[in-house]
Amino acid sequence: MTSSDTAVRAPSELEAMRRALQIARFGPANGPNPRVGCVLLSPDGDVLGEGWHRGAGTPHAEVAALADAADRGRSARGATAVVTLEPCNHTGRTGPCSEALLAAGVARVVVSVPDPNPVASGGAERLRSAGVDVATGLLADEGRALLGAWLPSVERGRPFVTLKLATSLDGRVAAADGTSRWITSDVSRHHAHDLRAEVDAIVVGTGTALVDDPSLTARNAAGELHGQQPLRVVVGHRDLPAGARLHGPGGELVHVRTHDPAQVLAVLATREVRHVLVEGGPTLAAAFLAAGLVDEVHAYVAPVLLGSGRPAMADLGVTTIGDAVRLTTRSVIPLGPDVLIVATVDPHSTTEEH
Amino acid sequence: MTSSDTAVRAPSELEAMRRALQIARFGPANGPNPRVGCVLLSPDGDVLGEGWHRGAGTPHAEVAALADAADRGRSARGATAVVTLEPCNHTGRTGPCSEALLAAGVARVVVSVPDPNPVASGGAERLRSAGVDVATGLLADEGRALLGAWLPSVERGRPFVTLKLATSLDGRVAAADGTSRWITSDVSRHHAHDLRAEVDAIVVGTGTALVDDPSLTARNAAGELHGQQPLRVVVGHRDLPAGARLHGPGGELVHVRTHDPAQVLAVLATREVRHVLVEGGPTLAAAFLAAGLVDEVHAYVAPVLLGSGRPAMADLGVTTIGDAVRLTTRSVIPLGPDVLIVATVDPHSTTEEH
Ligand SMILES: NC(=O)c1ccc[n+]([C@@H]2O[C@H](COP(=O)([O-])OP(=O)(O)OC[C@H]3O[C@@H](n4cnc5c(N)ncnc54)[C@H](OP(=O)(O)O)[C@@H]3O)[C@@H](O)[C@H]2O)c1
Ligand SMILES: NC(=O)c1ccc[n+]([C@@H]2O[C@H](COP(=O)([O-])OP(=O)(O)OC[C@H]3O[C@@H](n4cnc5c(N)ncnc54)[C@H](OP(=O)(O)O)[C@@H]3O)[C@@H](O)[C@H]2O)c1
Repeated sequence: MTSSDTAVRAPSELEAMRRALQIARFGPANGPNPRVGCVLLSPDGDVLGEGWHRGAGTPHAEVAALADAADRGRSARGATAVVTLEPCNHTGRTGPCSEALLAAGVARVVVSVPDPNPVASGGAERLRSAGVDVATGLLADEGRALLGAWLPSVERGRPFVTLKLATSLDGRVAAADGTSRWITSDVSRHHAHDLRAEVDAIVVGTGTALVDDPSLTARNAAGELHGQQPLRVVVGHRDLPAGARLHGPGGELVHVRTHDPAQVLAVLATREVRHVLVEGGPTLAAAFLAAGLVDEVHAYVAPVLLGSGRPAMADLGVTTIGDAVRLTTRSVIPLGPDVLIVATVDPHSTTEEH
Repeated sequence: MTSSDTAVRAPSELEAMRRALQIARFGPANGPNPRVGCVLLSPDGDVLGEGWHRGAGTPHAEVAALADAADRGRSARGATAVVTLEPCNHTGRTGPCSEALLAAGVARVVVSVPDPNPVASGGAERLRSAGVDVATGLLADEGRALLGAWLPSVERGRPFVTLKLATSLDGRVAAADGTSRWITSDVSRHHAHDLRAEVDAIVVGTGTALVDDPSLTARNAAGELHGQQPLRVVVGHRDLPAGARLHGPGGELVHVRTHDPAQVLAVLATREVRHVLVEGGPTLAAAFLAAGLVDEVHAYVAPVLLGSGRPAMADLGVTTIGDAVRLTTRSVIPLGPDVLIVATVDPHSTTEEH
């Protein structure tokens, strides 16, 4: 609880928020919309209904919860809506949730995370002005964790960028002859595939596309494609051969003929991409990092020594140790023989600002 | 328990071995001799005396335990000696322990680890032939862990070699201008200093000595020198300047004017060095690794990106990914923002065999 107006009225509200956070995760991790859960409580603290958002074009969590209550024959008049994200106040693919809650006669709304979206926000304000009691900030850390890349992508006004590296202990991503399969273990590769299934787009440079002929699909351990496939994005001027695996089964292929990472993100933003995974190679990785357009690094480090071959990162313009790009380690995850280091980039630590 | 003759006669023997393993650690981790602990039990399982080895030139653990029993006015006649390492059978700086145990009338000896030393071993044989009951292999994993680098150094007939790397996430050990202070955090550096205090010698190439002007001392967090300092070894033909920190306070300085890692180890073996820490740079690290003379790698990886500068490892002759030097990860230790990966080298994985 971060703000002073979050005092819960009853233990049932805290319990309901935990439940809302849990059911929100039934929704998809990717896609343009956030994961949201909502639980409706009677004045006595009974659960009247619950709902979560199932993805773009489907009802928001609050509307789903109201429908659930109606299905159960319960009225929401005088109820408390416990919801993981501030109800929206605008008409997008669906109507504003604030109006739906007002129409149903909800008397109190308990929110975890305020809506950062300049278009959608104002729901709490709208509800308050209509006499509804609104408390925000309950389990806000958990609420932000639930939102994943969605929250920073809205705050930054561009897709959230995760840079993936898969390196030897001496920082190489390929041997001298260009071969790079496999530096990391299958445990790491499966882990990386699970991340692919959570993002909206995977981006590589033409160098990687031409040398590795990757398919850039999200697959399970058995090698089968996941149902939801991210966009496949190739950056650079060169053409891909007609027989490239990128033309095979998988997400839609987008070729962005530029060297400007900001332009790549602008193109992806128009397609409602919230979370981008940049998978290299070293040239493209350095371009994103130098442009200040990497938010998070996932470095898979394998207990392998090469002594030559492509270093993980091309020139960043750093000449002395004091100018190094310093990240903040968020977690260290052993993966079989390898280790995954997840680190975030301080917005002020890279050479250029956007 | 690994061998069939390790059945303990009484719970007191297992307890005594745990105590012996514990008191052995009061002895020094470095130096030419192993850490050994001994507990003497009466036939009823009472502790008669205990002892550990305090370093080269002092009594072995068995002799110390016999002296402790005598001090307590207890006779060792008919006793069981529980000892972490097979009693020696040769006269070095001290007499053979097997004879001391026989002279005291010990009836049974319980051993954790058999002595791998071709000169010293045969203690169990000698005791058995004199009618003493001998059991070996009790808590053998713990016994081997206690011995640390000593055991493999005796098995290999050369010092055990730990290679330390301190790299950025993209595998650099210095920025483009040669600066490398500091890539890793002070948490990592303190950890590395603790390792220095456990080894017998620290080795660097002349390149590192000339560029970094290191002091190569073991210091505590306050920057004070530990009481015991490892040998400081510089490898290469170039001279050090008179004002180099390596001439300052610390362990004895040894300059080995060669490019052959095997010759370096031979020189150190004549000085009874058991555990060598190679601290770089990339040229010397690659020479040791390519010669098959690295046993263990300690890689401190910092959440830093450089994009240019010295890679951690110079050419190893590896040209394609299938020929990469693959290590076995033993532990992954988060250290503040950094992570330490400890990995061992499979004796058959490097390009050359010794
Ligand atoms: N282990 C791993 O995780 C991993 C991952 C990926 C790649 N790799 C390895 O990396 C190697 C390929 O490296 P790479 O650096 O050539 O690949 P890359 O970064 O994928 O592609 C470089 C190309 O991208 C284009 N490009 C896009 N933005 C650019 C910019 N801002 N500046 C310059 N060029 C830009 C240019 O192509 P145009 O000329 O077409 O414009 C450039 O030649 C391969 O050996 C691959 O195996 C390893
Ligand atoms: N971050 C870290 O952990 C770390 C650690 C150490 C060093 N560094 C950095 O590494 C850089 C120095 O790298 P470096 O590779 O020059 O240092 P180096 O490996 O310490 O020294 C290289 C020198 O060692 C001698 N040498 C010994 N055996 C050799 C062999 N088998 N083959 C060839 N030469 C051999 C040669 O000197 P002669 O000509 O005198 O014979 C050679 O020039 C510095 O920038 C330093 O800061 C970083």
